[in-house]
Amino acid sequence: MITISILGAGKVAHHLILNILEQDNLKLQQVYSRHKNKVTDLVTDNQIITDLNLLEPADIFIIAVSDDAIAEVSKSVVLNNAFIVHTSGTQPIDEIQNTNRKGVLYMLQTFSYDKEVNFNKVPFCLEASNTEDFKLLDTIAICFTEKVFKISSEQRKVIHLSAVFVNNFTNHLCSLAEEICKENSVPFDILKPLIVETADKLQVLSPKDAQTGPAIRGDVKTIERHLEMLKDSNKKEIYQIITNSIINK
Amino acid sequence: MITISILGAGKVAHHLILNILEQDNLKLQQVYSRHKNKVTDLVTDNQIITDLNLLEPADIFIIAVSDDAIAEVSKSVVLNNAFIVHTSGTQPIDEIQNTNRKGVLYMLQTFSYDKEVNFNKVPFCLEASNTEDFKLLDTIAICFTEKVFKISSEQRKVIHLSAVFVNNFTNHLCSLAEEICKENSVPFDILKPLIVETADKLQVLSPKDAQTGPAIRGDVKTIERHLEMLKDSNKKEIYQIITNSIINK
Repeated sequence: MITISILGAGKVAHHLILNILEQDNLKLQQVYSRHKNKVTDLVTDNQIITDLNLLEPADIFIIAVSDDAIAEVSKSVVLNNAFIVHTSGTQPIDEIQNTNRKGVLYMLQTFSYDKEVNFNKVPFCLEASNTEDFKLLDTIAICFTEKVFKISSEQRKVIHLSAVFVNNFTNHLCSLAEEICKENSVPFDILKPLIVETADKLQVLSPKDAQTGPAIRGDVKTIERHLEMLKDSNKKEIYQIITNSIINK
Repeated sequence: MITISILGAGKVAHHLILNILEQDNLKLQQVYSRHKNKVTDLVTDNQIITDLNLLEPADIFIIAVSDDAIAEVSKSVVLNNAFIVHTSGTQPIDEIQNTNRKGVLYMLQTFSYDKEVNFNKVPFCLEASNTEDFKLLDTIAICFTEKVFKISSEQRKVIHLSAVFVNNFTNHLCSLAEEICKENSVPFDILKPLIVETADKLQVLSPKDAQTGPAIRGDVKTIERHLEMLKDSNKKEIYQIITNSIINK
């Protein structure tokens, strides 16, 4: 039985906790949160601490807090020889302080409170400062997922940047489309099958080969008509710059 | 048995033909293509014509050619009282010439030759200049899909513009991410589960509620680090403008 304590109570911590509780060979030791009521009801009250001085020994401490708070939280783990990992896509492994047993467990997925995540398909990007601890991380990760990768801090930065493009930015473009629909009394729902197919297609085709639309066809008339329809200067600018980027490839 | 002739041999025509051939109560009458070898082998040679003067009567003629060619192709249908529809997202119904029986059958989906499409989930946006013809279009559409919508030419323009954002533009952002991965020797495949989850999430959450990432968190440090990593001025500009757009919402 591997004992795990989670330091943090945000979205990543929330989904991690839910998944740890489902595993037979993992034990949730404690959860640290500044606000007790932020932790899911599935965790018993005596497992939740609001003071890091109350931290008990565990096989691994997983810090799931904002990037800027990782160093500070890791410093507050005053237990001897603790194995401490963070879950950030952007911070290097050395952001962990006050221990030689450092690691990273970065789940390459987007987490929201209201959407359950199938961990089985989530890529776990692992890094550890020594081989034994890497093995422990690996043992934990394969409980959750079939997709485990050994990823360096440098590689992880690249993956995180790419993830911003394929997730955060694409989601925002959908948000702009929803606004366009609302402004024109068209139901956004009609676009949902297209959104799914756009993603499904990229499981079998490279995005370069999957590109369709007026820009790649050089259909100047349609592009002009679209720009005319867009009254809002922000949407117009985004339309123009991405269209140019497609044309110039 | 409804007889259908397809005028055109591009991607939309290709997928339409494949799906008509699978239907028991639809009959593919003829396919018009300037180049005989562009039509799938599943269509027999004597069904393919390269001259519109050889067009036989059919219950409906579906024009699936580039937007600019619709008017010209429709004029070349010299049969009396023909019901002619186009498949364009952007052109109004009146782009069809030389007949009073006009219509539109716009499939809101992205089509590539190498990717089979499950028509059952594709929204069919229908429009016709008279009620009887709309009924015929509807009868055809429900053979293919469970999602049939009556959509005016004005609404269709809005849907098409929105589709450019949720499909063409998001696909291009994935293409940029693939370049970033390649330049840094990280496998793009690792991002594929995230791409699928990004789309899946939007089936249950509005894109506004689904937004995550450094921009929505106001995480200036990460944004600065990302901009530093992007050497290419085009990617940098796109990163900056979409990030600002997220922040300003």
